[in-house]
Amino acid sequence: MSTEARGSLRVVGLGPGPEAWLTEEARQALALAGHVIGYHTYLSRLPELAGKVLHGSDNGDELTRAHQGLALAAAGAHVVIVSGGDPGVFGMAAAVFEALEQSPAAFRSLDVAVLPGVTAMLAAAARLGAPLGNDFCALNLSDNLKPWALIEKRLALAAQADFVIALYNPASRTRAEQVHAAFAILRQHRVASAVVVFAQAVGRPDEALSVTTLAEADPAQADMRTLILVGSSTTRCIERPGALPWVYTPRRASGSV
Amino acid sequence: MSTEARGSLRVVGLGPGPEAWLTEEARQALALAGHVIGYHTYLSRLPELAGKVLHGSDNGDELTRAHQGLALAAAGAHVVIVSGGDPGVFGMAAAVFEALEQSPAAFRSLDVAVLPGVTAMLAAAARLGAPLGNDFCALNLSDNLKPWALIEKRLALAAQADFVIALYNPASRTRAEQVHAAFAILRQHRVASAVVVFAQAVGRPDEALSVTTLAEADPAQADMRTLILVGSSTTRCIERPGALPWVYTPRRASGSV
Repeated sequence: MSTEARGSLRVVGLGPGPEAWLTEEARQALALAGHVIGYHTYLSRLPELAGKVLHGSDNGDELTRAHQGLALAAAGAHVVIVSGGDPGVFGMAAAVFEALEQSPAAFRSLDVAVLPGVTAMLAAAARLGAPLGNDFCALNLSDNLKPWALIEKRLALAAQADFVIALYNPASRTRAEQVHAAFAILRQHRVASAVVVFAQAVGRPDEALSVTTLAEADPAQADMRTLILVGSSTTRCIERPGALPWVYTPRRASGSV
Repeated sequence: MSTEARGSLRVVGLGPGPEAWLTEEARQALALAGHVIGYHTYLSRLPELAGKVLHGSDNGDELTRAHQGLALAAAGAHVVIVSGGDPGVFGMAAAVFEALEQSPAAFRSLDVAVLPGVTAMLAAAARLGAPLGNDFCALNLSDNLKPWALIEKRLALAAQADFVIALYNPASRTRAEQVHAAFAILRQHRVASAVVVFAQAVGRPDEALSVTTLAEADPAQADMRTLILVGSSTTRCIERPGALPWVYTPRRASGSV
């Protein structure tokens, strides 16, 4: 490859919603891109796309998008693959490296970089206060790419570890039952009064947040745009007038779990 | 409180390093602030502070800083408390809500908001590829505010759950031994070939990354500016010429753990 013809691939996190959650680095990468690849819904949110070649696709095509991005970069193009939130958290970055490993060895010399962003659990947590203020885990509830038994095992161990638990992708049109099974496991290990948050479409115009308890939570409330946070034994609410309570997990924790 | 005199408090994530990782929302909050409170090191990195009252303090004074910010906002000031990375992940947000709960009830009507940022594990992961590409947890190794026994329990359960594990605050001048104890626990539960990453000062001019295995990792390499990532059973490396290998965790996982 000559220096002149050298393409690039940037895997860019858009944050969960508004442009105000985009980093300056991500904004600049989008401005310099000749080609932008991504889920139709994300492409439609982007500002200033004039003059760029857009490659929109459906949500499920991660590996196809990744191969397309690598091939364009190998041909000398400046390519951005966009990902909602942070590309490294259940986003496009893992798919890009899966595709890279399947590609010709020469692709390993390509100019590839991942640009981090604000992932959904950080944005949801910020809206609510500081629910992730102590140790936590992030679990993708989709069993499209891993056995449900592994998800069950991770849920049980995470609950026993008294982590605050962030559940990504809790449900979709074709996966409506798993979130109920997940709550059944959580209810075996966590007290009924544990704080539960449903954060739907965080940062979007139709954002909806609710704060409840493990006993009263209705898992059917979750859809594919919902992030669920399950508090640890120390997660607390601070009631306040005219708004949802603040939810936070103190930095201090006892060993009583 | 009259509307005119109403102050505000914004708890703002600066990201782990360069200004390019700041969100536009955070930049605007800093621009509007009359008072900026934070650890000296963070204040020294901020651009355009002319005309603002700066309140620098030492790293350990989180609760004092939180009370100071609330008191200034209650008196009508527009206050920003800065936090490295994301304020909700082992940053200033939890301290602010701890202070709020200790404060007069009238403080619950204050205009308080948390503005999310890129936390260190997302930035470190992006530099390396996609090590957080499957389920993961974040654990603060400091036992200043929680018993070491709880940290040991969480480490063992997280290792058994086959989470990718991000270790924040692995060591400091006064806590040099815990990271060795943590690795001893991890070595009981994870194979010797598990991928381990030390990410020091990510995004700073002296950034240093290294990729090794659980068998060969030297915990003494960690200091207070280091984030450690311990891969799951599926985390892989892709060797490439002239650079560290890419590290990624495939989205696909088997149930064999």
